[in-house]
Order: sequence, then structure tokens, then C-alpha cells
Amino acid sequence: MDVTALLAKLYQQLPAENTGEVATYIPELAKVDPTKFGVHAVTCDQRAYAYGDSEECFSIQSIAKMFTLTMAYQREGNQLWERVDVEPSGTPFNSLVQLEADKGIPRNPMNNSGALVVCDILLNYLAEPKKDLLAFVHSLTGDETINFNERVAASERETSARNRALIEFIRSFGNINNDTERLLDFYCTLCSLEMNCRQLAESFLFLANQGISPCTGKRIVSSTMTKRLNAIMQLCGLYDEAGEFAFRVGLPGKSGVGGGIVALHPGDYCVAVWSPPLNPKGNSFYGMAYLEAFTSEVGESIY
Amino acid sequence: MDVTALLAKLYQQLPAENTGEVATYIPELAKVDPTKFGVHAVTCDQRAYAYGDSEECFSIQSIAKMFTLTMAYQREGNQLWERVDVEPSGTPFNSLVQLEADKGIPRNPMNNSGALVVCDILLNYLAEPKKDLLAFVHSLTGDETINFNERVAASERETSARNRALIEFIRSFGNINNDTERLLDFYCTLCSLEMNCRQLAESFLFLANQGISPCTGKRIVSSTMTKRLNAIMQLCGLYDEAGEFAFRVGLPGKSGVGGGIVALHPGDYCVAVWSPPLNPKGNSFYGMAYLEAFTSEVGESIY
Amino acid sequence: MDVTALLAKLYQQLPAENTGEVATYIPELAKVDPTKFGVHAVTCDQRAYAYGDSEECFSIQSIAKMFTLTMAYQREGNQLWERVDVEPSGTPFNSLVQLEADKGIPRNPMNNSGALVVCDILLNYLAEPKKDLLAFVHSLTGDETINFNERVAASERETSARNRALIEFIRSFGNINNDTERLLDFYCTLCSLEMNCRQLAESFLFLANQGISPCTGKRIVSSTMTKRLNAIMQLCGLYDEAGEFAFRVGLPGKSGVGGGIVALHPGDYCVAVWSPPLNPKGNSFYGMAYLEAFTSEVGESIY
Amino acid sequence: MDVTALLAKLYQQLPAENTGEVATYIPELAKVDPTKFGVHAVTCDQRAYAYGDSEECFSIQSIAKMFTLTMAYQREGNQLWERVDVEPSGTPFNSLVQLEADKGIPRNPMNNSGALVVCDILLNYLAEPKKDLLAFVHSLTGDETINFNERVAASERETSARNRALIEFIRSFGNINNDTERLLDFYCTLCSLEMNCRQLAESFLFLANQGISPCTGKRIVSSTMTKRLNAIMQLCGLYDEAGEFAFRVGLPGKSGVGGGIVALHPGDYCVAVWSPPLNPKGNSFYGMAYLEAFTSEVGESIY
Repeated sequence: MDVTALLAKLYQQLPAENTGEVATYIPELAKVDPTKFGVHAVTCDQRAYAYGDSEECFSIQSIAKMFTLTMAYQREGNQLWERVDVEPSGTPFNSLVQLEADKGIPRNPMNNSGALVVCDILLNYLAEPKKDLLAFVHSLTGDETINFNERVAASERETSARNRALIEFIRSFGNINNDTERLLDFYCTLCSLEMNCRQLAESFLFLANQGISPCTGKRIVSSTMTKRLNAIMQLCGLYDEAGEFAFRVGLPGKSGVGGGIVALHPGDYCVAVWSPPLNPKGNSFYGMAYLEAFTSEVGESIY
Repeated sequence: MDVTALLAKLYQQLPAENTGEVATYIPELAKVDPTKFGVHAVTCDQRAYAYGDSEECFSIQSIAKMFTLTMAYQREGNQLWERVDVEPSGTPFNSLVQLEADKGIPRNPMNNSGALVVCDILLNYLAEPKKDLLAFVHSLTGDETINFNERVAASERETSARNRALIEFIRSFGNINNDTERLLDFYCTLCSLEMNCRQLAESFLFLANQGISPCTGKRIVSSTMTKRLNAIMQLCGLYDEAGEFAFRVGLPGKSGVGGGIVALHPGDYCVAVWSPPLNPKGNSFYGMAYLEAFTSEVGESIY
Repeated sequence: MDVTALLAKLYQQLPAENTGEVATYIPELAKVDPTKFGVHAVTCDQRAYAYGDSEECFSIQSIAKMFTLTMAYQREGNQLWERVDVEPSGTPFNSLVQLEADKGIPRNPMNNSGALVVCDILLNYLAEPKKDLLAFVHSLTGDETINFNERVAASERETSARNRALIEFIRSFGNINNDTERLLDFYCTLCSLEMNCRQLAESFLFLANQGISPCTGKRIVSSTMTKRLNAIMQLCGLYDEAGEFAFRVGLPGKSGVGGGIVALHPGDYCVAVWSPPLNPKGNSFYGMAYLEAFTSEVGESIY
Repeated sequence: MDVTALLAKLYQQLPAENTGEVATYIPELAKVDPTKFGVHAVTCDQRAYAYGDSEECFSIQSIAKMFTLTMAYQREGNQLWERVDVEPSGTPFNSLVQLEADKGIPRNPMNNSGALVVCDILLNYLAEPKKDLLAFVHSLTGDETINFNERVAASERETSARNRALIEFIRSFGNINNDTERLLDFYCTLCSLEMNCRQLAESFLFLANQGISPCTGKRIVSSTMTKRLNAIMQLCGLYDEAGEFAFRVGLPGKSGVGGGIVALHPGDYCVAVWSPPLNPKGNSFYGMAYLEAFTSEVGESIY
């Protein structure tokens, strides 16, 4: 199969009308060009295919939650799950309702509350949290050009009332230990990571390769941990659209409000797609459609 | 690998104490011997392995929801999803809370409300619903000894206040069309299906084999539909423990309060395990533990 | 004060536009003339004042719940509150959400679930429930012309999916004992009571008169029970608009989707108003406005 | 009636066992002597009766919310209700669930979220908020010895994660404008007000006297506003036990976790009772029982 040609063809076949809308709740994100589209696929044996704006960096936002989750899992092992559960939530990503019923244990590490607890855990381990996080991301691929976007981080901190509420609420149940502003600063910086489709696909490739980065040959996490991280992505990676994504795309994946989605086929490949307009559930409208067509054509879902 | 020996070894390694409890809400189910344990694994090329009480029939209960779902999907295609969603619910299997918010559209076809809607749909298609259902189940493997247990069905009808409530509640939103007692009778009969581990593993094998039953060579559903059915099982098959199951076992699966769990590895095999005592979330305590150990040893999850 | 003239003046001063809408969920109710308006006030010493269509009968609907509540309270005394609570619910009148959290104990006897439990209790006491109910209503004023409307009752039974759901749901918690159809028939018949404003005001007058009907001189309930019935009306009588009603009108009251509202000033008077169009919370739009103006002019709320 | 003797007799008749527990979530409150008991009743014509520790100051906590509500109502008039509703909530006092459904508009000004919004409003009006608040409280009775307890306020600020969560959550809906720490400081200081039963009864007496303080002869709010404040207390003053309180006591009232309850009979009297151990819903166990007996004996509820 000529994968490069396929990537172009699939783009042509996207629905003419993109009914999604660019995220506006973070002012800095609202400035992005909604017509941007990029995709990059890379196999475990490092064959790579790309189309469109695949080399242009964008704000990966929640996709970055997988980086901190991996770092925390490395350090805490399965103790981690005493502070955050691994169940899909059935409610929007920033909901407080379930937290009240669950007494401050977030349903999973992919929604905001769970990601905040994961960041809180990491703050107890990292001497220089932002620097250490960046070093970890660099270590996944060897690419040291990846960086935060300070303006996005600042923009996010300024519109973080809901996340502050989550932090204080979880703290009231005893499941947050660090200072609110310090935690929020780390979290917003995490979400401000900028990567292009290639970097994204490559940095998630260890999850398709039993925990070893094909780019560097280094083991990131054990094979068992890899499976568990993929299971979490599968069930919780696309918020309350996880079922739809599993149903249509059939791969573990993680989305961000910047319009990126990364998905992977264990043992096979990783693919990252980027298109800023989001559907009503907060996932890239074209990204979902493209990945659905992609797995249909490539004939591969995990099911 | 000597799979037969492995099945026995894994049984020996189960935790000594089974903290689960046999379901008692249906009187007929409470009579089962809690020490029963059986497992049967069968590959797409029909190699089979078994251990324990694998030839003893038990009440498969909610596992049977996959049969009616498959039948409804055959008939309705993707229109089906206008009446039932494919998202995990995050709430217990018989909850009414989400139905109220979602205006009578059940979150997924694996919880009671969704399964009732699926049965309601089938009643419009089937001339003799119970007979047609049984014929379908027989057609999956060619084994015509599988049958309902009328006492269990009757016992279930008598303790069905919650399911009646679900039916009337969904009806109030316009998403149930048939008579309550007729629907309930069909649903309770469905749940009263009795099968042994071998029959269960064989009857689900088409879902591991791209939609074709290896036992009969007949196509049940298309390859795409197969993937989607597996995705639904993965995300919703173990109620609000779906995440835990994906995390620990890593396979699409479906459980029932009779203590059965069936799981499958697409392209590879299907395994059914049975142990009546249930954990607090309503899934077989030993079943979960056994399948976790099994996939760890066999080295195969889908992730 | 010329109360008769006041009643006319207050009608003239109602907002020109009635933004309410006539209830349509029961087909029979949808046929009512939306321009009808009547009011009748009567004091404990039996001075009476009326305006408009005060002699025209209408469907009192939920207002009738106070009759069965009084009858059940007579028979059960404070044991009654073990099966139904006395707290405002904060949710719509037919909500199932709280029932799930409260394990089948309705929040109060004024919402549908609580009224159904009250009817269920009465069915255990009454030899001929409908006849006995009617006899009770007649005994409040001596007026034996008051009757049910069989067409309305039938219409209501046919559109009772939500109430059937409530019954089965409460039954699943063990708080309903009688047959669903029998209970529903009694409940729908209760709600089909037809009365005019005069009959309504007179029949509630015992609640303003320490439990003794001024019309007949007979004691209906004790003085303490009277206070408690009034407290329940005050806190729960207007569904999730009870606060607004207390705030604006300041009297215990009960509304029905037929457009009637009855309110009373303990020790003083009872007033019934009728105007079919309902506000979004299900209470008569003009009824609320009229009673607010009435208590402002008369200078009497209980606060 | 010898009211003084009655107050003593009612104390003797309290249930022997006090099953309540002193509030411990604020360390400073946990230090109080649980055997303290005081009551003070004062009529609109200033006859006063007392029993027990009625001259001993205690932390009035949430009772103080009525002071800020009155101050905000004076300044905003009925515009106030655009930012906070007047409906009972049906949920615990510090719940976030309803806020999410109601998009940041608190159900009523008596629960924590509503009281925080009221404080936020006042911060925009008051030049020196704490000083101005104290001046207002002094003006109700002329007693200038009433003061805050700085240790309690500090203790409360330190354990305010839940209130911080409420503030940030409401802010995320645009219904909080001031700085979190400034608002929290004002709110915690408010709750730290210390008063004895006499001061409490006297300071609420204007609400029983059509808005005019009998102690000073000065009008605090209009007669209409007085009625509305009483209606709010009646429906929302005892959190999710408001129904029980209306049912048993029959008066508008307000409680605090310090163990105080103040209740009033419009046109007649105001009574304050204090006993630290709280029932499971957070209201004084003996306080509820005493007021129930009191209104039974005095023969006066508003119903």
C-alpha cells in the first residue's frame, strides 16, 4: 500500500463541511488557523508517512497528560491507583459531580481532576518539575527542540477558575498536597507543550512498542505497564466520547483541545493527526473522521 | 506451551480467599454451589483447552445481552445507535440517573436499560422472539442443546421491579414501544440462558474471527460490525468495572451475575470462565483474577 | 376593605401578557379554555368573596394530594413519615434521581413519588378506595356534588409511563406494596377530581382553622397535625418553586397542573385561584401573580 | 404563663441522651464544652426570658449569614436574586452538584455557595468590610461588645479547601468577582462572630417586628423585605433539614455549626438556643428538640 498517497486521499475524502469549532476558552488557543491539517504515522520499525501541516507545532494540551501519567507510573507503580481510579467517567472532562460521590478520588487520570492529582504526585518527586518534565519528553525521541509555550501557559493560568475549583475540592478530601498555585502552574505548563504531528507520533511510539522507544532504543516503562497505559487511553482518552472513538476508530488514543489526536496500534504503529475545530464533546472533528477512515482503509483496529 | 497444564496451574494460583458473594437478588441464582469453577479456551482454528467444571451449565445472565445486541445490529445496522449510545456509563448497571439526563437514550447496550431497548427493537422483528433467539444462539455453534431455564426466568420476572421501572421510564421518553410484560418476559428469558464454559467460548468465537463462526463457517456479522461489537464489550461489558478489566485483563469481555465472564483476543482465541461469587461491582471475583493471570501468562492482551 | 372590589381590581392589574402555557401532557387537560380565571376567598368565620369563573369546575390535579395525605395521616399518624420524608426536593416533581440516592423514600408527599406512596398506604386501609376518598372530600364541606372526571382519569392512566416507572422503582426498594395498575388507577382517579374555586377554598379551610372544618364544625385532624400539614405545603407544595412562592406569596399553598392554586393564612382565611396557563415550573402563571398581589394588598403573609 | 419556669422545665424534659456530636472540622470549634446549654427569648415589646448559659458567647457560624444577606438586600434590592436563588436545595450545605446544573447560581443564600456570593456582592459596596459588618451587627441592638473571634476565623481559613473550591467553581461561571483570599477572609471572619443567646435573639428581633429593631427603634429593612427574609429562613435556614424544622418547630429559623439556632414568630417573639452537639444534618440536636417542645408548649407556630 502506498501509505503516503493514502494519507492524501483520506484528506480529500473528509466531509466538506467541518462543523467543529476552535476552542476559545483559552484566548491564546482561539488564535489558531482553523484550516490547518496535518497527519503523521510512524511504525515501530520507524517507517514514517506524513501529509499536510505535519511539521507545524501546535498546542497539544491534554495529550500531554499521558507524559505526566507515565512519569508518575514509573515512580509510584501500582500505588498510583490508590489516588486515581482507571474507570471511564461518563461525565464531561471538568465535572465535579463524580468527585463528590467518589470522595475526591478522580475516576481516571485523563480527565482534569485525575491529571491534577497525577501532577500533584509528581511535584513530590521532581526537583525541578518543568525542567524534569521537558527532559522526559525529550528522552522519548531524542528531539530536544520540543518546548512549552509560555504565553499559552500564562493564558491558561488566567482562565483556570474551574481547575482551581477542582484542586481545592480534591484537597478538601485530602487527595492534593501541594500549593494550589504551584500545582496549577505545573499543570498549565504541561498543557502548553507544543509539538508537531511527527514529534507527537514518535513520542507515543513506545506505547506501541511494549514500552521501548524505537527512536532511542531505551525502555520507558515495562511491557505490563505499557498495556495498562494503553488500556487507560482506550477507555478514558477521549473524555465522554471514548466509546464513540473505540467504536469508530478502535485504537487507544488521546485527544487535546488544541485539535490534536494521537492513536496507536500496539505492535504496529502510532499516528498523530491535527485539525483545530472541535466537535461538541471537545475532540477534533476532522481528527475523529480521519482516524476512522484511516483504520478502515488500513484494515487495522485492535478489535 | 502446554495450555491445559497452564489452565490448571492458574487455578491453583488463585487467591486462597474468595471474598466474593453469590448473587442473591434472584432467588434461583442463590442456590448455586459457590465452589464451582470452570474455564474453557478455544482458538480461531478450533484448538480447545479446558479445566474444572467447564462442561457444567450455569445461568449466563447478562452475557446473553451480546446475543440480542448482535441480532439487533444485524437487522438495524447503524440506525441502532439512534436508540442506544455506545459510551461507558460510569454508574451501576441498573441506574436511572443518567437516563433522566440523557432523555431516555441508554448509555450503552450492555447495561440493563440499553439491553431492554435492544430487546424492544427485536420484538418488532421477530415472529416468535424466544424461539428465534434460541435458533440464533444455536446457529452460532451448531449446538442445539442450549436452552433457557424457565425457573430462572420466572424467578427473575418476579423480582423485576427495577427493570419494570426502567422500561416505564424509558417509555416515558418514547424509546420503548412494546408491552411491558411482553418485553420483560423476553428479557428475563434471555437472561435465563444456560450454557457451559465450552458453549460460551464457542458461541463468542465469531467475535474473535472477524464475524465468521469457526464452528460453522457461517458469517454472523461483517468484519466492521465485529470490531464495533468488540469495542462496545471493551468499554461497557463489565459495567462500572470496565476500566479495571481493560487495565488488568486487556481484552474485550462480558460478564454476568451468574459468575461467568467471556473474553476474547481478536484474531486469536476466546475464553470463558465461571465462578459464582461476585465482587462488589457484580463481576466474578475469581473470574477477574483468573483472566488477569491468564493474559499475563499467555502474554497477550490487545494492547 | 371591600374585598369583592379588591378581587376584581387585582384581576385588572395582572400582567397583560400571560406567558404561561396550558398543560398538554394529559390530552384531556389540553382542551381547557386558557382565558378562564376564577378566585374565591373564604374566612374561618365563613365570610366569602369571589370573582370571575369561581363557580366553574376544573381538574384540581395535584392539589388533591393534600386530601389523601390528610387521610393517610389520620390513619398512620407520625408513622407515616417512615415511608415518606418531609423535605423539599430541589428537583422537578417527577424526578427519579433523588429516589435512587434516598433508597426509595420519597422526599415529600407532594411530589409524585411521595403521593404514590401515600396512595399505596391508603389502599391498605380503604375498603372501597375511590368511594371512601370521595366521601372524605364531601365530608370536608358537606358538598356532595364534587366528583371525579372519568375521562381525565382514563386519559391520565394512558399517559402514565413516568408514574409507572416511579411505582416500580419505589417497589424495587420495598416501599410500595399494592398492585401497580390498582395503585395507578387510584392515583389517576384522585388527580381527576373536579372542583370549583369555592369548593376548593372551603375544603381546605380546616387547615386554616386548627383542623376543624368551619363548614361542618367537625374536626378533621388535630391542631398539631394541622400545623404539620401546613408546614409540608409551605415547603413542598409548589414543587421546585416552593421557595419562590414562600418568598412572593408567603402562605402555605398547593398547586395543580390544571391551573389551580389554593393557599391559606392560618387562623384567618383560605383562597383558591384558577387560571390554566402554567409557568415553566408547572404552576399557574396568573395564579402566582394574583396571590402575590392579593397578600400584598391584604397585608397578610404568615411572616 | 411563667415563661422563665417553662424554659427551665423544657430543659429538664430534653431527651436524656444527646446523640449529637460537636463539630470538629474547624479545630477551634472542637474545643467547646458539649454540655453547655442556653436559651433566651425576647418579645417584640421587649419582655425577655432566659435559662442556662444564655449569657455565654459562642461561635454563631452560619447564623451570621443572615446579617450579610440583610446588608446585601438593603443595597441591591431584588436585583440580588439574579445572582442567588431562593429555593431550598435538597442537598447538603456544601454541595457542588447543584451548582454545576444551575450554572453557578446558588440555590439560596443560606448554603455556603449562596452566602459566598452574598459576601462577594458586599465586598463591592463596603469600604472596610469587616468593620462595616460589625457596625451593622452593633446597630441591630446597640450592643457594641459583639466581636469576631480571630482564632476561629484563622482556624476556618486554614480548613477552607471546600469553600475555596466553591468560590473558584462559581467564579468559573462568572458569578464571583473578588479575589479568592479576600472573599474567604471576609466570609471566615463573618462566621467567627461570637454572640450569646440574648444578643442573638435581640439582633434577629427586627425580623419578628416588620423590619424595625425594637431595641433601637430603627428600621433595618422594609416590611416586605422582612417577610421575604423570613420566607428564605423558613425554606432554607436549616440546610437539608428545613422541612423537618418547619414540620416540628413551625417557625423561620437559622442554625450554625457552633450549635446555635435562632427562630422567630413574626409579630411576636424571637428565641435563640445554644447546645453544641449536632445531629447528622449539622443542626443542634438539643436545639431542635428544645424549640419543638417550646412551640408546642407556647402553642405558637406560624401555621
